[in-house]
Amino acid sequence: MIVTIVGAGNMARGIGTRALAGGHSVRLHDRDRAKAEDLAAALGRAAPGSDATAADADTVADSDVVVLALPYPAGRDLAAAWAGALAGKAVVDISNPVDFTTFDSLVVPPGTSAAEQIAAAAPESRVVKAFNTTFAGPLVTGEVAGRPLDVFIAGDDDTAKRTVTELVSAAGLRPLDVGPLRRARELEAFQFLHMASQERLGLNWSSAVAILP
Amino acid sequence: MIVTIVGAGNMARGIGTRALAGGHSVRLHDRDRAKAEDLAAALGRAAPGSDATAADADTVADSDVVVLALPYPAGRDLAAAWAGALAGKAVVDISNPVDFTTFDSLVVPPGTSAAEQIAAAAPESRVVKAFNTTFAGPLVTGEVAGRPLDVFIAGDDDTAKRTVTELVSAAGLRPLDVGPLRRARELEAFQFLHMASQERLGLNWSSAVAILP
Repeated sequence: MIVTIVGAGNMARGIGTRALAGGHSVRLHDRDRAKAEDLAAALGRAAPGSDATAADADTVADSDVVVLALPYPAGRDLAAAWAGALAGKAVVDISNPVDFTTFDSLVVPPGTSAAEQIAAAAPESRVVKAFNTTFAGPLVTGEVAGRPLDVFIAGDDDTAKRTVTELVSAAGLRPLDVGPLRRARELEAFQFLHMASQERLGLNWSSAVAILP
Repeated sequence: MIVTIVGAGNMARGIGTRALAGGHSVRLHDRDRAKAEDLAAALGRAAPGSDATAADADTVADSDVVVLALPYPAGRDLAAAWAGALAGKAVVDISNPVDFTTFDSLVVPPGTSAAEQIAAAAPESRVVKAFNTTFAGPLVTGEVAGRPLDVFIAGDDDTAKRTVTELVSAAGLRPLDVGPLRRARELEAFQFLHMASQERLGLNWSSAVAILP
C-alpha cells in the first residue's frame, strides 16, 4: 500500500512508524518540504530498509490512503483545496477539534464532527475517522500496558473502511469498527475528555483509550 | 457508608455487589417492593454477613449516597419527585439516555446530558456521574481482562465527588475524576458508541471502557 501522510508533526511520525512496520510505503507531504524530508529521514533511520520519502502534492494520485495528520480546521481546509485529487480516495481524518483556549468543548457545533465537516469539504472522497484516540507517543511503540493500541474506525464507505482496517492490522494495532462516519461525534467527544483529563489524572500523554477485553 | 440504590435491576445488582464488597450497607428501593426484597436477599446470599436490605423511600434521609439505578428519563422523574429529600445528598446518575428505537443517537439534546438534566430536576442535590460506562456483568466481578474496572466520575461538588470516589475505591474499582458534571456529555456519548458497537464487535455486553495504563 502507498500511504500518503499530510503533515510532518508528531502524529505523522507515529502513524508513519506504524505504517512502515506494516510493510507499506510512506509518502510524507508538508507545506514545509524540509520538515517532510527530515521526518522521512528519521523514519528511515528508525526502520532500516523501509520506504519513507518526502513527496509533492501529486503523490495523492497513486496513493491508496491519504492520512490528514493536521489539526482541525487545517485538515478541513486542505481537504477542500485538494477535493478534486481526493475524489474516490480513502481519506483518514485523525483530528480532535478541541477548543484549546478553554479546553472545555469542541470547536465543531454539537451534532456534527470534524470528520463530517471534512467529508463535506471533499464530498467525493471517502472519509474514515481513525487514530483520533491514539496519542503520538504510544503510536510509535504500538502498545500501552502490553496491549496493542485500539484504533476506533468510523466511516460510511465500506471499501475505504476495509483499507484502513488492513492498515491498522498490519501495523500491529487492533481495529475496532464502530459504525458510520457520524460515530466520529462520540469518538471526538471522548478523546476531548481524555485530553482534558491528562493533567488531572497524571497521564502524561502516554495513555490510551481501550475497550477491554 | 449507607448506600441507597433506587431500582432493583441488573445495574442495581452490579453496584450493590461492589458496594457490599467495600463493606458498606446497601439499601435497595424499588417501586415494586418485592423486587427490592428479592435482590437484597440474593445479594445477601452472595456475600454472607453483608448488610443488604430492602427499604422504603424514607431511607434517603440517613443515606450517604443515593444511586439512581434507573433508565433515563425515569431517573430524572424520580429526582424531581424526591427533590426535597435529595437536597444536600450525593446523588449518582449512572444512566445512558440512548434512543433505543434508532440506536443512533441520545434522547437528550446535543450540548447537555442526562446527568445535567437530573441535576436540574433536583437542583439542591449534588449530582455525580459515575458507573455509566460499566456494564452490569463486569460490575459483579469487578474486573475485565484482569484489570479493575475504570469508573469515570464527573461532578461539580467536590464533597460528593470524594464520597463517590471512596465508594469506588473501596469496591476494588479504579476511580477516574474527569472533571465537572458537564463532562457527562462525553461519557454518555462514548458509552452510547460502546453500546451501539456490542453486536458488531461481538462483545456480548461483557466489555469495559478503559484508559490504559
